[in-house]
Amino acid sequence: MSQSTTSDIKTYMNTVGKQARVSSRALAAANTSIKNAALMAIYDELVKSKQDILSANKIDMDNGTKNNLDAALLDRLELNNARFDGMLQGLKDVSTLPDPIGEVTDMTYQPSGIHLGKMRVPLGVVGMIYESRPNVTLEAASLALKSGNAIILRGGSEAFESNQAIAKCIHQGLKNAKLPEHSVQVLQTTDRAAVGELITMTDYVDVIVPRGGKGLIERISRDAKVPVIKHLDGNCHTFIDRDAEAKIAIDVSVNAKTHRYGTCNTMETLLVDEAIAETLLPQIAEAIVAADEAMQLRLDEKSQAILNNNTKLSGHLSAATDADWDTEYLAPILAIKIVSGLDEAIEHINTHGSHHTDVIITDNYSKSQRFIREVDSASVMINASSRFADGFEYGLGAEIGISTDKIHARGPVGLQGLTSQKWIVYGHGETRT
Amino acid sequence: MSQSTTSDIKTYMNTVGKQARVSSRALAAANTSIKNAALMAIYDELVKSKQDILSANKIDMDNGTKNNLDAALLDRLELNNARFDGMLQGLKDVSTLPDPIGEVTDMTYQPSGIHLGKMRVPLGVVGMIYESRPNVTLEAASLALKSGNAIILRGGSEAFESNQAIAKCIHQGLKNAKLPEHSVQVLQTTDRAAVGELITMTDYVDVIVPRGGKGLIERISRDAKVPVIKHLDGNCHTFIDRDAEAKIAIDVSVNAKTHRYGTCNTMETLLVDEAIAETLLPQIAEAIVAADEAMQLRLDEKSQAILNNNTKLSGHLSAATDADWDTEYLAPILAIKIVSGLDEAIEHINTHGSHHTDVIITDNYSKSQRFIREVDSASVMINASSRFADGFEYGLGAEIGISTDKIHARGPVGLQGLTSQKWIVYGHGETRT
Repeated sequence: MSQSTTSDIKTYMNTVGKQARVSSRALAAANTSIKNAALMAIYDELVKSKQDILSANKIDMDNGTKNNLDAALLDRLELNNARFDGMLQGLKDVSTLPDPIGEVTDMTYQPSGIHLGKMRVPLGVVGMIYESRPNVTLEAASLALKSGNAIILRGGSEAFESNQAIAKCIHQGLKNAKLPEHSVQVLQTTDRAAVGELITMTDYVDVIVPRGGKGLIERISRDAKVPVIKHLDGNCHTFIDRDAEAKIAIDVSVNAKTHRYGTCNTMETLLVDEAIAETLLPQIAEAIVAADEAMQLRLDEKSQAILNNNTKLSGHLSAATDADWDTEYLAPILAIKIVSGLDEAIEHINTHGSHHTDVIITDNYSKSQRFIREVDSASVMINASSRFADGFEYGLGAEIGISTDKIHARGPVGLQGLTSQKWIVYGHGETRT
Repeated sequence: MSQSTTSDIKTYMNTVGKQARVSSRALAAANTSIKNAALMAIYDELVKSKQDILSANKIDMDNGTKNNLDAALLDRLELNNARFDGMLQGLKDVSTLPDPIGEVTDMTYQPSGIHLGKMRVPLGVVGMIYESRPNVTLEAASLALKSGNAIILRGGSEAFESNQAIAKCIHQGLKNAKLPEHSVQVLQTTDRAAVGELITMTDYVDVIVPRGGKGLIERISRDAKVPVIKHLDGNCHTFIDRDAEAKIAIDVSVNAKTHRYGTCNTMETLLVDEAIAETLLPQIAEAIVAADEAMQLRLDEKSQAILNNNTKLSGHLSAATDADWDTEYLAPILAIKIVSGLDEAIEHINTHGSHHTDVIITDNYSKSQRFIREVDSASVMINASSRFADGFEYGLGAEIGISTDKIHARGPVGLQGLTSQKWIVYGHGETRT
């Protein structure tokens, strides 16, 4: 679109919003086989248009190189054969997920005679704002369609050509399946004012899902009038209780810290019960450093006293500052703190954590149950790696995001997070007295 | 409190918020019998302090009279013996409701070996803003406590003395039951700046529930940074399909319109299928007017043609304007429109309604199912009065509000609406590969 004035953008977004709302009605009424047929029709179009999409991606990559995008960003932007196939497989996977819509629960007779239940229904229109990866365009569109929602997608400007090429296939697929083309709309502008409109059009958009850096998400949450399913950060803890089994403590700690660094469910702080710190902490620290020689451990005073003279760790240690307890490193860095026991561990996690995913390693029944109940996080685990906190591992199939909020959807958000429930009443002429 | 500057209010609200957050941790860990004991301890304090509370209410009533509050507002403000007893009964009822907290659902083994489920947990801290009725103070506090949440209450300035007297009993009851007194805080200021703080303290407040006029709720929704469970308006419809049973059509219409006028689930627009309008509409209109001689019917052109010469209705009829289709009257006024059939009815409701409660009267299976599925409202009913859409009739026990949003809680919001679910993982040393 040609974009000159704020008023142009307002008019454009208003049209996009209205089209989404109208399309959402048809989607809400579409049955499972029509929605699945649309997903497979999109699949066919993508297969046919593979070269066009890869060429469009080449333009984005060339522009990115010209504009000096950093290597990590260019990597996320790239669509190669393997990623294209992965994208197609993801689409197929979504089509095989159970349809969440129409599920009726809790249907019971009330004393008045009415038969009352709850029916799962689409939210309506989802707005999604994301950064470079073009495969998110297809992933988000397929989750929205499967859950009966229209979606408005605003990808990163650096992926503009790739996203438009994918959108073309989605539209043709929708058309072939006789669903409204405007069920999925990829914005045809990269003007930032469009985002401002998208997140405030409460008449046309039911929920905003932002994906990207913390800065982007904070900005969107601050300015949005539409409800936001947001994920701020993942400052995840593992607490090694005095009754932990040593092998589990070591294995899980190594996995939670070193399996991947850039993910929000990676451990950032290790809490160790002072009763076993002297014996177990050195083993854990050594195993973590052995797994990655780039690892840096930031220690509180008590753990310094235990580890500072450990020759296997030399060059890997430094003193933690207060800021470390609140930091999501997304890097080979781990903060370590000795705590007096379960109470201090829970207190530390609830105070400094980001309410994302926290783990206790223990073989004590009472403490495991207290941890599960009292830690106020989206995922709370016993004797398992925090890395499990994601949509695929939780059996959701795919996730549109991970929520650190408590309202509506918490933790990994799959199809169900894109739905609501309405009350349904089957009567027989009942009136209220 | 003495209140001079904005900074004083900020400091005060910050303290209130912190105290609520700290208390919420103890409440989340409190078991059912402790919470019920606290509710009954509050009950005992209220019984003991009945005269103090009625005296405090007398001060509010006298001030209200001096300040020329209108009669309806004074009526809502008044606490007499019957209302005091009703308030106590409500408290007892909440104590007998099942505890929603701790319910674990969907616990299944995942391929990795982890045992994954969802546990129902409190939201944390609820902020409630409401107008004159002092019994809301106790009702909201008891629902919050039962669901394990701390609550910050900001009642209307006209009920200040009544609310403080009730708060005193709540605090003493909490103290007697050994729960933190700050679990329930009634603001000790009527400064409007306190509301501004309350709805933006995202660190300390998890959800805001406003109750009151549309203006208040729109203002709060606009300015809030904390998620809001809100109810804007109830523009409810009854659609009389051509396959309606006449007696049900008449009985339900009369009940939905005339049972009470000031409630959000009262019918405001009657839609009548043109195929049966000629025969059935006069009977319905006559029955509604017979139920209340103050009734005014606002008619579209087609219904004017049918009703204008009906002598039983003379003096009750006028022409509807476009604005009537979007209006919540809360008065003995009903808009009537003839539609071509189910499609136009659904379209009209989804376009002009407030997504609150809408009803079809029909004996046709297919149309009843399409209506249930395609009408995008919090409650959708077949052959029953829209007046049933409330917490008591839905078996929720009591409601903290009725939500017209789709996010988090929809329709009548009881204890469950004040909860969230966290993912819980029981592992055995699993690591992610």
